[in-house]
Formats: sequence, structure tokens, C-alpha cells
Amino acid sequence: MLGSTHNGARYELTSPTAMPKAAGFLWNQRMMIQMTCRGYAVAQFMQPEPTKYSHAPNIEAKTFMQPEQSYYAHHPGRFVYIKDEETGDLFSAPYEPVREPVDRFCFSVGQSDIVWAVEHLGIRVEMTLGLPTQDVAELWTVKVTNLSGRRRKISVYPYFSIGNMSWMNQSAEYRPDLGGVVASSVTPYQKATEYFKNKYLKDKTYMMCGTPPTSWETNQQAFEGEGGLHDPSALREPNLLGTDARYETPVAAVQYRLALNPDEQREYRFMFGPAFDDEEIRGMCKKYLSKGGFARAAREYAWYIEQGRGCLQIETPDEDLDNFVNNWLPRQVYYHGDVNRLTTDPQTRNYLQDNMGMSYIKPEVTRKAFLTALSQQESTGAMPDGILLAEGAELKYINQIPHTDHCVWLPVTLDTYLAETADYALLKEKVEGPDGDELTVFERISGAMDWLLKARDDRGLSYIAQGDWCDPMNMVGYKGKGVSGWLTVATGYALNLWTAVCEQQGHSKLAAHYREGVDELNAAANEYLWDGDWFARGITDDDVVFGTKKDKEGRIWLNPQTFSILSGAANTEQRAKIFKEVEKQLSTPYGVTMFAPPYSKMREDVGRVTQKYPGSAENGSVYNHAAIFYVYSLYTIGEHDRAYKILRQMLPGPSEEDYRQRGQLPIFIPNYYRGAYHEYPHTAGRSSQLFNTGTITWVYRCFSEGLCGLRGDAEGLTIRPKLPSTWNSIKVTRLFRGAKFELDIRRKNGLRETMVMHAGKVVPGARITNIKAGATYHLSVLVPQ
Amino acid sequence: MLGSTHNGARYELTSPTAMPKAAGFLWNQRMMIQMTCRGYAVAQFMQPEPTKYSHAPNIEAKTFMQPEQSYYAHHPGRFVYIKDEETGDLFSAPYEPVREPVDRFCFSVGQSDIVWAVEHLGIRVEMTLGLPTQDVAELWTVKVTNLSGRRRKISVYPYFSIGNMSWMNQSAEYRPDLGGVVASSVTPYQKATEYFKNKYLKDKTYMMCGTPPTSWETNQQAFEGEGGLHDPSALREPNLLGTDARYETPVAAVQYRLALNPDEQREYRFMFGPAFDDEEIRGMCKKYLSKGGFARAAREYAWYIEQGRGCLQIETPDEDLDNFVNNWLPRQVYYHGDVNRLTTDPQTRNYLQDNMGMSYIKPEVTRKAFLTALSQQESTGAMPDGILLAEGAELKYINQIPHTDHCVWLPVTLDTYLAETADYALLKEKVEGPDGDELTVFERISGAMDWLLKARDDRGLSYIAQGDWCDPMNMVGYKGKGVSGWLTVATGYALNLWTAVCEQQGHSKLAAHYREGVDELNAAANEYLWDGDWFARGITDDDVVFGTKKDKEGRIWLNPQTFSILSGAANTEQRAKIFKEVEKQLSTPYGVTMFAPPYSKMREDVGRVTQKYPGSAENGSVYNHAAIFYVYSLYTIGEHDRAYKILRQMLPGPSEEDYRQRGQLPIFIPNYYRGAYHEYPHTAGRSSQLFNTGTITWVYRCFSEGLCGLRGDAEGLTIRPKLPSTWNSIKVTRLFRGAKFELDIRRKNGLRETMVMHAGKVVPGARITNIKAGATYHLSVLVPQ
Repeated sequence: MLGSTHNGARYELTSPTAMPKAAGFLWNQRMMIQMTCRGYAVAQFMQPEPTKYSHAPNIEAKTFMQPEQSYYAHHPGRFVYIKDEETGDLFSAPYEPVREPVDRFCFSVGQSDIVWAVEHLGIRVEMTLGLPTQDVAELWTVKVTNLSGRRRKISVYPYFSIGNMSWMNQSAEYRPDLGGVVASSVTPYQKATEYFKNKYLKDKTYMMCGTPPTSWETNQQAFEGEGGLHDPSALREPNLLGTDARYETPVAAVQYRLALNPDEQREYRFMFGPAFDDEEIRGMCKKYLSKGGFARAAREYAWYIEQGRGCLQIETPDEDLDNFVNNWLPRQVYYHGDVNRLTTDPQTRNYLQDNMGMSYIKPEVTRKAFLTALSQQESTGAMPDGILLAEGAELKYINQIPHTDHCVWLPVTLDTYLAETADYALLKEKVEGPDGDELTVFERISGAMDWLLKARDDRGLSYIAQGDWCDPMNMVGYKGKGVSGWLTVATGYALNLWTAVCEQQGHSKLAAHYREGVDELNAAANEYLWDGDWFARGITDDDVVFGTKKDKEGRIWLNPQTFSILSGAANTEQRAKIFKEVEKQLSTPYGVTMFAPPYSKMREDVGRVTQKYPGSAENGSVYNHAAIFYVYSLYTIGEHDRAYKILRQMLPGPSEEDYRQRGQLPIFIPNYYRGAYHEYPHTAGRSSQLFNTGTITWVYRCFSEGLCGLRGDAEGLTIRPKLPSTWNSIKVTRLFRGAKFELDIRRKNGLRETMVMHAGKVVPGARITNIKAGATYHLSVLVPQ
Repeated sequence: MLGSTHNGARYELTSPTAMPKAAGFLWNQRMMIQMTCRGYAVAQFMQPEPTKYSHAPNIEAKTFMQPEQSYYAHHPGRFVYIKDEETGDLFSAPYEPVREPVDRFCFSVGQSDIVWAVEHLGIRVEMTLGLPTQDVAELWTVKVTNLSGRRRKISVYPYFSIGNMSWMNQSAEYRPDLGGVVASSVTPYQKATEYFKNKYLKDKTYMMCGTPPTSWETNQQAFEGEGGLHDPSALREPNLLGTDARYETPVAAVQYRLALNPDEQREYRFMFGPAFDDEEIRGMCKKYLSKGGFARAAREYAWYIEQGRGCLQIETPDEDLDNFVNNWLPRQVYYHGDVNRLTTDPQTRNYLQDNMGMSYIKPEVTRKAFLTALSQQESTGAMPDGILLAEGAELKYINQIPHTDHCVWLPVTLDTYLAETADYALLKEKVEGPDGDELTVFERISGAMDWLLKARDDRGLSYIAQGDWCDPMNMVGYKGKGVSGWLTVATGYALNLWTAVCEQQGHSKLAAHYREGVDELNAAANEYLWDGDWFARGITDDDVVFGTKKDKEGRIWLNPQTFSILSGAANTEQRAKIFKEVEKQLSTPYGVTMFAPPYSKMREDVGRVTQKYPGSAENGSVYNHAAIFYVYSLYTIGEHDRAYKILRQMLPGPSEEDYRQRGQLPIFIPNYYRGAYHEYPHTAGRSSQLFNTGTITWVYRCFSEGLCGLRGDAEGLTIRPKLPSTWNSIKVTRLFRGAKFELDIRRKNGLRETMVMHAGKVVPGARITNIKAGATYHLSVLVPQ
């Protein structure tokens, strides 16, 4: 079912039905498109809020990107119908909407394009989707080849869904002057003030043809007729009828009637996207809609993607892993860091972590993100729930609910940035806050740490308000008293990291102050939350400790365990108990779940998470963001095998069976795999298919700092690989502070600690200092058995 | 295409494709369902806000009821698949989703049920939908008969769409203990406070089977497989597989495998609806799900509908008209008055007019509505934009936009109520306002009239703010200066009516005050708005008069003309000019448009209406509510032929061609027919299919008070029929103040005015007084040639 992966930069699927939701995605800074192997599309662009130009057939709700997207016949898509003009036989590429089983199928997702090749009735259809780098448009190439060895008469009908654009005003017509279909609409609104907001929205959707078609149809109903989308009545006629859509659902479908000699090939280009007016459409056509224009756009886009290549290449005994880590993982990291999930108000914790990933790719982006985030810090030191990125943007959805954890992520993400860049100068940058106060980055983060220390109850435990890093735990502390076990130890971890920065900066008094905070937090956690074998998740407004042995559901939560390791709250004995319980209660073949057992019904003193579907989203799912932190914490304490096992589970696996269960191509890590392994084994492990996740930067860090053991500091790079015990050697190339490190890492018997050889000499402390930009370091690394 | 109409209480359609959107609707005080002939459904129930229990396949926006609803393969629907177990042949009743052409098709909409009869493959499928009177549930009967004359093995698969219930939590399973499918969900929310609002929502959808099925399927994807909804893979198996839906789209499909002897018939009952819990489902089953339960519910529902029978029966030369006026028109009036369009915040003008219709059916409802509306009057005398009907209800959508016309509708609707009931006691009722002030109805309406007189500019013209009785004219006066030509003369009309009430109540000083207001208003209208041949629509914030000869679009508006007739602003000469221009510029074969020409693009000093699609909704459509007021105004000045012509156009016509264009069964009047007759002749006349409209009560009034010429006053009933000149006679039965009037109306040559004979005597002034409740009056009425 999965075809060859060649150079690792393409993944191929050879059947549209075995993994029906398998999808690739492309993006630039203004748009994103996810295409399933069957031809369905989810696309959005920013103006500045996320907007669609190809809609559902009904009035869809505006909502955040959904996991486990469900598809149905009229879901937006891009298809090519092929009709044999001699027999009337019909099929469609890639597969929808006709769903005719085809002779050959290949869905090939590349780093910078998505390609299908479908063969049926002696005709090969190749479809290629590319994006421009700067503009919002889909660039489609459709190639049709006669494989049948005889002359053929066929019709080729590219079909682009436009859907229900607006209940106020929608229409479509073919525009010979522009060379394609233009659908017009007015974004519906009721308040006069909204008119001025909407005035310059790109309310048109166009589909321009590089080659003038034989005929066209712009009216969805006229196209389908009584045949339906799977067998459109319009295709039973010699020509499409060219009906306008007049306050009717628009569509962009065109026909090319052709006679093909044996082996003859035709190539067509189409451009599909939103526009403000005809002028813009004309400009886009001129810029892109030609062989040269498409080729230039493809080159530029490949170059753009190449910018996100990352700083780590590995060669391990696991080829699938190598492909993923070398090619796809940095791409997903880059996507997050480059476009902030195409929102205008990313959650603060997501914004910081997504940008943290850019430390490995374009550290200047990370630097800027710290300055942006801190410029929105409240005068109390608290960080807001979301960071506003566009003028007029507002906190939406979950960002309207008060969460108490956002400050934690400042030192946690800064740690990665500093380790990668040693850019301590950042700490001295002055940042003006919303109140006009000018403070340095150092002062602002200290302020955030003080806020965390303050936002605690008499016992020294951190308030949770309406949530922390588990969005929907909204009723633990909504009355103002409930506390978070996780946030208590996460604050400990943050302060731990910040103490180190204070010391590095020579602020030893401050360091002592924060170290004292860590001690207090860890002590409080142990006093109030240690349940004998693990840490509880929190204490409710009504003083009920939860996430404990007495709970039938939500008995043990992963995050408090992870961060008790990171904060130092858990001693060695406690850790051993934790490992055992995590393995017993949270481990599944698809990863470690965020908690277990999942809630089967509402628990009012915990909140919304308990109402979510068991095993989906946060309710006892394999929530990868939580799992990767556990992995990270395990690497920090030398639990290499435990760490790698979970890390590997998180990656889209190499086996067909695994893919079938997860239902996604191994080109990204989703935000979750379904949990509830014991309750609903049939659906456990299924992928959310959602590629927006804070997981990804930590996976990168776990490979770089964990598995490969490469960690920077103010002056150098320490090398302490943490290979799983089943591996004997790996090769690593790492770009670091302008230098290139080529590492040959081998396991060696009898060694007590890692030994690094450079130019024939042992490197003291396995730490390279005085790194020269532009240089290449060939290092031999020996690690203990 | 239209079958027989028998007793007028059923309309039948014999093809599903000629009028694909033709639909019937049923309702009770808690729910509404509109079913198309093809099996698609739009259903909602109140809890207290409108909610769905059968959803679209994606996350649909919550919005007001839409005109020109578009359908697509996965639109919610109720279907029965039939499979011949011997040949594998498949079809579905009523038509969707298989769309197999059938041998016989009948879609029969009755007053209190909706019935299909479909014959194909020698099998007859009869589907009947009924509603209970008090509860929210669909009661479905499916009868299957073997017509083939030989023994048959078939499978019958009732299919009820459930769709995407929730992104938080959704599932479905077959419950043998309950005897059907139960789909569960949690309404998504994010703020903790919303939890308490949602806590008792009916988040389950059930489909209970009166007869235990052979097999079942509850998972949409498993049901469809690769076959799709039109050819589900599940039906290719001997039995449905009984898959659960686990955070997957639910469906309720069951199978009955049966062997039928020639002419053998099986009957199945199903109940489909929302519930809070199992207990409620159990209770509903016990109450309804049996032959006796269904029969009792049908009787009760027929009785409920019978309550809305109205007070007018006519026998004219136009049989279609008679059927419509005698059977369907009062039903639609009743629907409006009984359920207020199933909203919790009806627009004030709609609330008053919808309840005004109840004057003819249940006047006590109208009375109560006046008291409810006035209890929400602001202390300034202004009426709010919407009337809140449920605890916790809020002004939504268009009701958040300030409109200035709501006060006008108080005397306008009261006029009907008083004419029907002579209940002048209402005027003395005390009503406490939101500010705690207690005022009589008379004082409150006087206050509203004073507010109208005050809300005028220096010229004496009425401010429009962000709209009047044309919702989206939101930018004429949003800066606070613009005025409405229509509202100026509508205020004149309202004051005219109120003057009469003041006089009747003996408040002659007040009457003089308001009469002075009328004179001022009419004078101002003539001075600033008379454009030589018609009245302008208004004057913008920037002092631009619009709706005049100089406008290329929106040149002439109907409403200012209508109300200048009603207010007396237009003298005889002006009226003659108006008739001519309305006929020239606004008349179309489908009715009189609200204005012409439609706007083709935004005009910023008029507003949103100019952005609507030309010919649809308000933008130059045949907006029936506006058209019927013109009809009414024509009846008031003796323009019988002009009035009747337009009135007849408004009714769903008798000809097939007319139905085809309008696309609806002649059982209701929609809020609009598409206009833009000159710009888009192809789509002009198409019905909005939306049965919510203030039109309907005025249509009833036009038939009763206009065409039949029956108008009540404080002491009696005046009879002045206004027959179109092509008619020579009609018969009328009218219930009025408890008495029954049987009128035989004939045209007579040489008569100067109407002559009414009762018990052999001429009735003076054609006015019956001293009416005896319980009596029947046989009247002979002669009207002039």
C-alpha cells in the first residue's frame, strides 16, 4: 500500500481506499491546503482571519481546525473526470467522486508538491498541485496520456468545488476575457460597522485555464443534474451547457474534448484561488499561468521549503525513522514556526513552542517571537492567553478562557533557544509592554516567574483558574480555589531553568530566590499531591484531590509525573514507581496516553475534558504533546530505552498495519492518536490527521538533544548520545552555530562515559568549545554499552 | 405533474424531479419539519433556542432559516432503501439517495401529514410522517406491499440521517433494550458558564423501531463504504454489520429481511427525535410507538391543526384559489400565530403581524401578544427590535441592529384585532413596562405614537437609523441624519388609524393632536419626497434623496407608494401616476417587485440591501410582504382589479409552468419570489421556499376585508365585496363574533352600491349590527357591475 520512499522526500500510497483519509499538505505564509489521496481538500488563507475560497455545500460554521475531519460526497475537492467519448465509460481522478476502481493509483506527497498518477481505461491522468511562495493560489497541472495503443476520443473535465459562498450574494460565470470561471460573492454581515471590515475581502473565487476549454459549467446543480456528483448528468451531454450560477451554488468545471493518438500526451494548467477583483485575477494569470510561470513558482517554492531543512541528519538502523527525521520532521517544525498555524491569535504556549522550533532552522524568528510575546505581557507579569499577530485580531475560541500556565513556557522555550544560539544578548533587549513600561527581556521573564510564584495558594500550590496546559479542565478551579498539580511542578521546572539563566547572568541573589521557589514547589507537591505511587493532577475548588488511586476515571495523569521528573520533585524511588505505573496504566501500542482511564461522563469538578469523547482529543488520548514531554524528561535522566520506545511509537510507523490503524501517511505527527485502548480497542491508535501540534518541536529536540545527545551551552556543544540499547551505531550530521559536525557514533564495550575524538584527540568532557563557523568537525563518538 | 386536489386538504405531486425542492411542512409548538418530495428534511426544535437532531455531515453554522435552501447528497433526510434479495436490484423511497426512476411516485401533502407512495420493482412503499401535538418527535409509518403477483424476497432499510452532532463527543449504537438506535453527543462549548446552560440539552438523537429489525448500522462511514450514499456498500452484504459509531458520524439505518406473498403487506413504525436520556426515550416509546399510539397522535394532531381552520370559506370561479384560501392559507396564518416562527426573539414587527393573524383564528392569542409586546416597550415609548419570548433569550442576528419602524405596527395590527373582536376593553388593560411603570394599553400605544412623532428631523421626516421595514437598508441613516420616506408615510398611516381609535374612545383632543401629526407628515412627504411621478424612498445622511428618477438602480420603491395611499399623502392625481409607474417599472408576471431596478453593486449610502444578490431576498425581489400591502392599499381605495391581479400572482399558481418556475407546491406563500425580471429572466419568479413571512396575515385580511369586503367595527359588520370585474358571483361563509354568515354574492347591473338582503329585507348601509353569537345569517349580496 505504501510505495517506495526513494530519497525520503516523497511518500507514496498505491491505493485510495486502504487509507482513505491519507493526506499531504502544502502551505505558504498566506495559505494552507491539505489534500487527501482521494481528492478532497481543506484549504484556508489569511485576510487576515482564516478564510475559505472553496466551501462546503451548506453554511459551514467558522471554527478552529478540526481533528478527524470527516469527508462526504460534497466535501470540497479537486477532481478530473475522464469520459471515453466512444463508450461513455467514466472515471475520475484521483478517485472521488466517481469512485471507479482504477488500474493503477499513486498518491505521491513530496516536500513541495502533491502528485497523483491514475490509470484507467487506457488513460493515464497525472495531477500535480503546487503553491506559489508569496501569493494565495493553487497551481494545478493535469497531464493526460493515451496508454491504450490506439487512437482515443475522450473528454477531460477538471472540476473544482466552490460551494456555498454566501447567503447574501453568490454567482458564477465563465469569463472568456479572463479565460476561466469567476465566482462572485459578498461575505454576509448584518452590522454596518462590519461592512468596512469586509469591504476589501477577497470575495471572488476563480479557476483560470491555461488552455481555453471546449465548454464549461459554473452551476453546481446544472452540472450534477439527476446523476449526482458521482455520475453527473452534464457529462452525459456532448458538451457542458455553460449555465451561469445566479444565487445558486457555483462550481468550476470545464471540458476538453480531445482525440489522442497512441502515447500522445496533453498537459493543462489551472489556477484556483481567491481574488478581490478581475484586475487581481489578470495579474495572477500573467504572473503564473504558463509553463514558465508554473516552473518558476515550483522552483521558488522548493527553495522556500528548503529553508526549513533543519540542522540534523541521522543515519540509524531504522531507515523509516531516518527519512522522517531528516526530511519530514523539520518540514513540520518549519511549518509551525513559519506560519503560526495560520491563526492571528495563537495560544501563548503554542506561539512560544512553535517558534522555539525555529531555533533549529531560523533562530532570528525565535528571537523576534520572544520580543513579540513579551511586548504583550501584562503589567502583573502574567502572559496573556494568546498573542495577537495582526492588527484588529482578537482572542478567539479557547483564548477567551483564562489559563494560568502561559508564563511557564518562557524559560522552557528560551532554554532551547539559548542552547542553540548562546544569544544571551537577547536577555538585555528592552521590550515595551502594553502599559508603556520598558523592561528588558530578563526583567520581563523574571516578572513572569514572580507572577507564577505569586499565583499560588496557602499550601504553595499553583492556581489553575479555568485551565492550564490541558485546555478543557475548566472546572477544577473556576471558583478561584482549585490548584493544578501539573502547574505546580511545571512552575518548578520553569524556575529551575530560570535559576540557571540567572546564575549564568551573574544574578546569584535572584538565582537563590528562584531556587528557593523550586524547593517550595517541590515540597508542596510532595506534601499534597504524592499519592503513594504517582503525583495527583490537582485539587479542586472543593478540596478534592484528583488523579489519584481513588478515582475510577482520570486516575493517573502523565503531565504531573513528567514535570515532577523535570522539576526534581520526584526522587529516584518515586521515579521508579512512576515508570511502573505509567507503563501499567498509560502505555498502549500507540503511545502513552495523557491520562487513564478516560472519562465516560461529565465530572463537574474537573470540567469539559470529562465530556469529550473517550479516547479522542484530550480525553485519555495519546496526546503527543504530553507524551513527548515524558520522553524528554526520560532523556534528561538517562532512561534512553524508555524514552526511545515512546518516541518511536509517536512517529507514523513503518508497518502497513500501523498505517492502516492510524490512517495517515508518515509525513507528519498528528496532535493525537486515539486512546481509550482498553475501552475502545477498535478505534484506539487512529490518527487525528491534524498536523497542528506543539509536539513537533519537542520531537526535534528529543532527537537532537536526547537521542543524539547534542546540547549547546554558552560556549560550546556537549556530546552525550543516548542510543537505545538495541542500536550499535548511528551517523549524525549536525549544523550548529555555523559549523558542521559529522559524528560517527558507536557503542563500545567497557566504556564508562561517552568519549569524543576529534582530529585524533580525545575531546575533554565530550564538549567542543571555541566552535568555528564555517568549519566541519569530523567526530568519532564512542558511547558506553 | 400535480395530481388531484380532491377536497383541497391534500396536494399531490407525481414526479420527484420536476419540482425537486417541492416540500410540505408540519409543526407543533415545539418543533417544525419541512420535508422535500425527494426525502430531504429541515427540522428544528426549541430548547428553548432552535436546535437540530438530524445534522449536516459537517459543522453547520447556526443561522436563521434560509431561503432557497440548497440540497446535496448528504443533506439530512429520511429514506427507505429497498433491495430485491434475488436480483440485488436497489431503489430508494421517496427518491433520494439512489435516485432510481420509479414506476409510480406520489408525494401527497396533507394538512396534518405528509405521505409518499412509490412503486418500483413490483413493490409499493408508502411512507407517512406525522407529528405528535405536544412532544418533539417524528412518527414514521412505512408500509411495504408486494404488487408483483409472485412471492418476493426483499430487504427494507429505513435510513435516518443523524450527521455531525458535535466535535466534542458523538457516538451511536443499537440498543436492544430500547429497541432502536441511540446517538449520543455533547453540545460543544468552551466557557464554563455555558456548561450550565447546556447541561439539560437534549443531546441524544434516537430512532426507535416498532418492530425489531433483522440488523442495523449506526456508523455512517460503515454504512456507505466505497459505494456511497447512493449505493451503500452495507446493502451489498446479507446483513448490516451493526458497527458502532465512536467519535464518528452516526446514522440510524436498520434492515428488515422479508419474504412477501403476492399482495402481502407489512407495516412498520419508527420514531425519530431528540432526547435527554434513555428514560425519556422509553417514555416516548410507551406513549407513541404502537399502532394505537400513532393513531391517537394522528387524531390529536389533526384536531390541533383543525383549531387553525380560520373564519373564511369562499367559493369563487377559481377552484385553485378556493382550495388555497379555504385550506392552506389559514394553516399558514395559524402556524405563524401559534409558534412565532420558532424563534425566541421574533422581530417586533413580525411578532405583531404574526399574532394579528390569530385575530381570525384565536383572538385571545392576539390579545396576549399585544400585552407581551407592550410589556417590553422602552420608557421612551420606543418598541424594542425584538420581543423576547423565553427566559434567557437574547436579541440575535438582525435584532441587534437598530430599526425605527417597530412602533408603527401597533395601531396597524390593532386595527385588525379590533375590527375582528371589538375588544376595546384591551385598551384599558394595564401593562407594566421593563422600567416598572404601569400604563394602559391605550397610553402605551399613544406613547409609541408620540415617539414616532418625535423621531423626526427638522423637516418632519422620520429618521431611519440603521433600518426600517427593509432590514438591510442599514447605511441610509447610520450617521444619525438619514430619513425614511416610507416610515414618514407609514407613521402617517399608523397615526391615521390611531386617531380613529382615540375618537372611538372619546379622546377627541388626542385625536386632533395625532390628526395634526398626520397632516404634518403627509405635507413633509409631499414637500421633500414627491419626485413628480412617485414618492422617493428616503434621504441619506448626506442629504441625497434616493428612489428617484435620477437613480439608475433602486429608482422606484413600492412601500412609499403604498403607504402614501394609506396615509392620504397621495391625492387622486398622484395615485394615478403611481399606478402607472408601478405597472411600468415594478410589475412582473410573478408579482410586483419591492423596488426596481435591483442593485448590481454596493451603494454605500443605502447599505446592505444593495449588496444582496439582484432579485433575491430584498434586492428587487417580489417581496410578498411589500406586495400584499400594496394590494391592501388598493382595496382601500376601490382599485379592485389592480388589487386582485397582484393578489392572485402572489399565490402559488395553478399552472404547471408556473409551479415549475416557482418550484413549490401551492400550499404556502413564500417570503419572496425572485425578482430581477429584466436582468435575470431565467431565475425570476423562483420561490424562496421559505414559509416564514409577514405576508400571510395580510393576504388573509385582503381576502376577508378586501375581496369579500367584510369589515367589522365596534358594533357590527359592514359588507362591501370587491370582486374582480371578471367575476359575476361568489359564495362566502364567514364566522364573525360567534355568528355564521352565509353570503351569496352576485353582481348586478345598474346598482350604485352594494345591497345586502337579510331575511327578505335590505340591510341599511350594508351593515349588520346587533350580531347574535350562535346565529347563522343567510345574506344575499348584490354588488354593482
